[in-house]
Amino acid sequence: MKINLNADLGESYGAWKMGEDAALLEIVGAANIACGFHAGDPLVMVTTVRAAMARHVGLGAHPGYPDLQGFGRRPMQMAPNELEAALIYQMGALAGLAQAEGGRLGHVKPHGALSNQASLDAGLAETVVGAIRRFDPQLILLAPAGSELSRVGRRSGLTVAEEVFADRAYTERGTLAPRHEPGAVISDAEECVTHALRMIQEGGVVTRSGAVLRWPIHSICVHGDSIHAVRMASRLAEALVAAGHVLTDLQGALAA
Amino acid sequence: MKINLNADLGESYGAWKMGEDAALLEIVGAANIACGFHAGDPLVMVTTVRAAMARHVGLGAHPGYPDLQGFGRRPMQMAPNELEAALIYQMGALAGLAQAEGGRLGHVKPHGALSNQASLDAGLAETVVGAIRRFDPQLILLAPAGSELSRVGRRSGLTVAEEVFADRAYTERGTLAPRHEPGAVISDAEECVTHALRMIQEGGVVTRSGAVLRWPIHSICVHGDSIHAVRMASRLAEALVAAGHVLTDLQGALAA
Amino acid sequence: MKINLNADLGESYGAWKMGEDAALLEIVGAANIACGFHAGDPLVMVTTVRAAMARHVGLGAHPGYPDLQGFGRRPMQMAPNELEAALIYQMGALAGLAQAEGGRLGHVKPHGALSNQASLDAGLAETVVGAIRRFDPQLILLAPAGSELSRVGRRSGLTVAEEVFADRAYTERGTLAPRHEPGAVISDAEECVTHALRMIQEGGVVTRSGAVLRWPIHSICVHGDSIHAVRMASRLAEALVAAGHVLTDLQGALAA
Amino acid sequence: MKINLNADLGESYGAWKMGEDAALLEIVGAANIACGFHAGDPLVMVTTVRAAMARHVGLGAHPGYPDLQGFGRRPMQMAPNELEAALIYQMGALAGLAQAEGGRLGHVKPHGALSNQASLDAGLAETVVGAIRRFDPQLILLAPAGSELSRVGRRSGLTVAEEVFADRAYTERGTLAPRHEPGAVISDAEECVTHALRMIQEGGVVTRSGAVLRWPIHSICVHGDSIHAVRMASRLAEALVAAGHVLTDLQGALAA
Repeated sequence: MKINLNADLGESYGAWKMGEDAALLEIVGAANIACGFHAGDPLVMVTTVRAAMARHVGLGAHPGYPDLQGFGRRPMQMAPNELEAALIYQMGALAGLAQAEGGRLGHVKPHGALSNQASLDAGLAETVVGAIRRFDPQLILLAPAGSELSRVGRRSGLTVAEEVFADRAYTERGTLAPRHEPGAVISDAEECVTHALRMIQEGGVVTRSGAVLRWPIHSICVHGDSIHAVRMASRLAEALVAAGHVLTDLQGALAA
Repeated sequence: MKINLNADLGESYGAWKMGEDAALLEIVGAANIACGFHAGDPLVMVTTVRAAMARHVGLGAHPGYPDLQGFGRRPMQMAPNELEAALIYQMGALAGLAQAEGGRLGHVKPHGALSNQASLDAGLAETVVGAIRRFDPQLILLAPAGSELSRVGRRSGLTVAEEVFADRAYTERGTLAPRHEPGAVISDAEECVTHALRMIQEGGVVTRSGAVLRWPIHSICVHGDSIHAVRMASRLAEALVAAGHVLTDLQGALAA
Repeated sequence: MKINLNADLGESYGAWKMGEDAALLEIVGAANIACGFHAGDPLVMVTTVRAAMARHVGLGAHPGYPDLQGFGRRPMQMAPNELEAALIYQMGALAGLAQAEGGRLGHVKPHGALSNQASLDAGLAETVVGAIRRFDPQLILLAPAGSELSRVGRRSGLTVAEEVFADRAYTERGTLAPRHEPGAVISDAEECVTHALRMIQEGGVVTRSGAVLRWPIHSICVHGDSIHAVRMASRLAEALVAAGHVLTDLQGALAA
Repeated sequence: MKINLNADLGESYGAWKMGEDAALLEIVGAANIACGFHAGDPLVMVTTVRAAMARHVGLGAHPGYPDLQGFGRRPMQMAPNELEAALIYQMGALAGLAQAEGGRLGHVKPHGALSNQASLDAGLAETVVGAIRRFDPQLILLAPAGSELSRVGRRSGLTVAEEVFADRAYTERGTLAPRHEPGAVISDAEECVTHALRMIQEGGVVTRSGAVLRWPIHSICVHGDSIHAVRMASRLAEALVAAGHVLTDLQGALAA
């Protein structure tokens, strides 16, 4: 089976460094690049675009709320027309930097609180999907498997790639178990690999009880906030290949 | 003779309103739209794009230094790669919003301190011109007549439209007389009209001594920060038509 | 009876002007000065402090959410320790500018979405009140009459001045009728004056049905966003004096 | 001899961490705390204040230009009244957070480009010194030894503590050798210690040629941007004590 690995990249800002981007670019097939509202600045963005292109990693926009101090993790309430404009602004800015480097955006993945809220709230998901469609309906929407965002995107005609998280437990409804709950975040590397492999092999989200929600899965999100996280991503990639899967970009995973 | 009128638009920000944009869009043929770094926010930008498109006014990016509080008027020193990325980011963001509305950017005009510095400093002009060329070499550069920015742009292969200011006195070298000097800013409407008409008819910048620097002039910049300014722009437009000139977009003025 | 008039001032930012501050300072006895997070910048703040001191108008901090583009009107969710620090930061900054001018803060009034949320949510009100108490327990809290914020403030030992709005209708519970409801905002000047006078004379909030909620009222909030608003404030001041009331600062109104 | 060690602290921002603050607080006697304009946010600031107070380290404001993306290292040109207000705003904000914790600011040290420019430009130094004097003339100004900033501060009546850098070479005029020049930054730990000890023992700045400029020295600035830097600071502290010096706060060093 063909499967994609994706990661959030370009999350440094000015003098502040974040993430092991170079190491992750050796592993993933899709880069979700921060667009300056919650992380990233223009120079970080173009540097990340160049690095991703040099490794033939697919370029994606990772737009978030306008909240640098909160890293886009604080829930906000923006009017739909304001949010739509903010999302197109961010996608356009990254697309411009990609264009200047001879590259092209292939996908979009909302960040942080925006992603969490749009995964549950169909109205917000409509706004996000509408912004993508108005900007470029050819873009792939990378969204949490089984989310409202994914459903709204597909229904509106967008190509949607569905992602799971190797290091997160899922509730019986298929949503991420809240971080503060015991066992919500899986820190053991082997357990993560097993969890992810099982979701790929079963073809669906595996909940805490072991139930399988049969949703198509195209991508696994990996992290690079520490050397430990990168090693886990690397282990996961090896395990997937060892199990006979082929690592690919989002287009490849969708065609599979 | 064909001549363009241009104006800086979309300079509101959030709850703060600035400029008589609707009135100016009845008068000008080229809109320089702020891109969110010194003025404008995503919603203001898309609103301005729509209003300009509805009046068939040419869309241009008006990028500036990242300095909201200083309105981009404070000289800054940015590393060339940082400035280049910041300019492409802004052009890309506006291009994205235009694209979402079915429109397309036709020109770029640097704002405030960035424009002033790049008009005198060839190195800075190279960075600005390089950013435009990397982003989209088809864009017209709208630059002060006789400036380093104009010269560097032309030499590098960009199409350059040269602009003059009806309400500003020029030194013998053809630079704007500093605002603090007496007579530097012309406040009388009739005097402005006479000054502008003379520059168009003589085909060059008219200095304080009355000398003519024979530089091609394609556009006159008008202001909309007050009803008074809009009336002056309106008078100028009427006087140009009465004198047999044809008001046009930047492409038309360049083709003339 | 002694009554205070208060107004939100210093809401300009950089090149953007907002509010008829000079005119309002002739009318009110308490100035709520924006602290740079939702409006105001350091120069606007110190200019406003000077103008208020020159008119012997009491200085108050008007802190808000860190949201310049949204003018502090967008609901946000901040962690309590983060919000507490943000509030103390803003009060400290304004207190520093007042101190440099030989002045001293006398009160605090939360702004916009923060005020709206803290008026209904006791937990949030605790955070706001805690920040004020940690910074300076002598400060008067200026809060909407009958709000959770007022209740929590009083219970914790702060001196609380309760305010009403002349131009807003009240629900039967004493909360502001939502702006989008018909009649929620009273635009007729005479009606505002009558509404305010009645609340002062009855000694409580007058609801849409005409019922009176007997809460102490120390201050009336007036607006200065337009010449029309200033005229209304001026009319209200005259009507209060004509009815035998004495206009005073917050301390005077509380002592009455 | 009594000597102070100082360090720039609280330079994290939101999700971005910077500096080994906890380790440095075991070594230094004066903490220069970023105030939110070039680094630091309200929560980082109060956390740093608490940590410094717990280690009995003196609290100082470290104000900079309003330039988060450039970390306050990009030269800017601000009008004197604007800069003065920006400095008082930052000092006030930190003083407010200190006050809320039962602490009190003892000193001020300008950051980055502001410090560099004010060390050479007497006019700018006047603005900085004026801001401190207006805010609180009891504050100690911590300034580069032999700088214009130090001279202007002393002449205006401020108490000035003069600092040197262990890891930087000095020109014959006593200014820091520009970073891009070979040997300008001393990376060898032993060499740094020797350089610093010699300046303390000679009682003046030691230039590249070995000449001594006899200026009083009260403090040595150490860095904490890496574990390596912290180790160097620790070595320097040990070497100073071994040589018979007493490490103290700024007040102690000034009284010596």
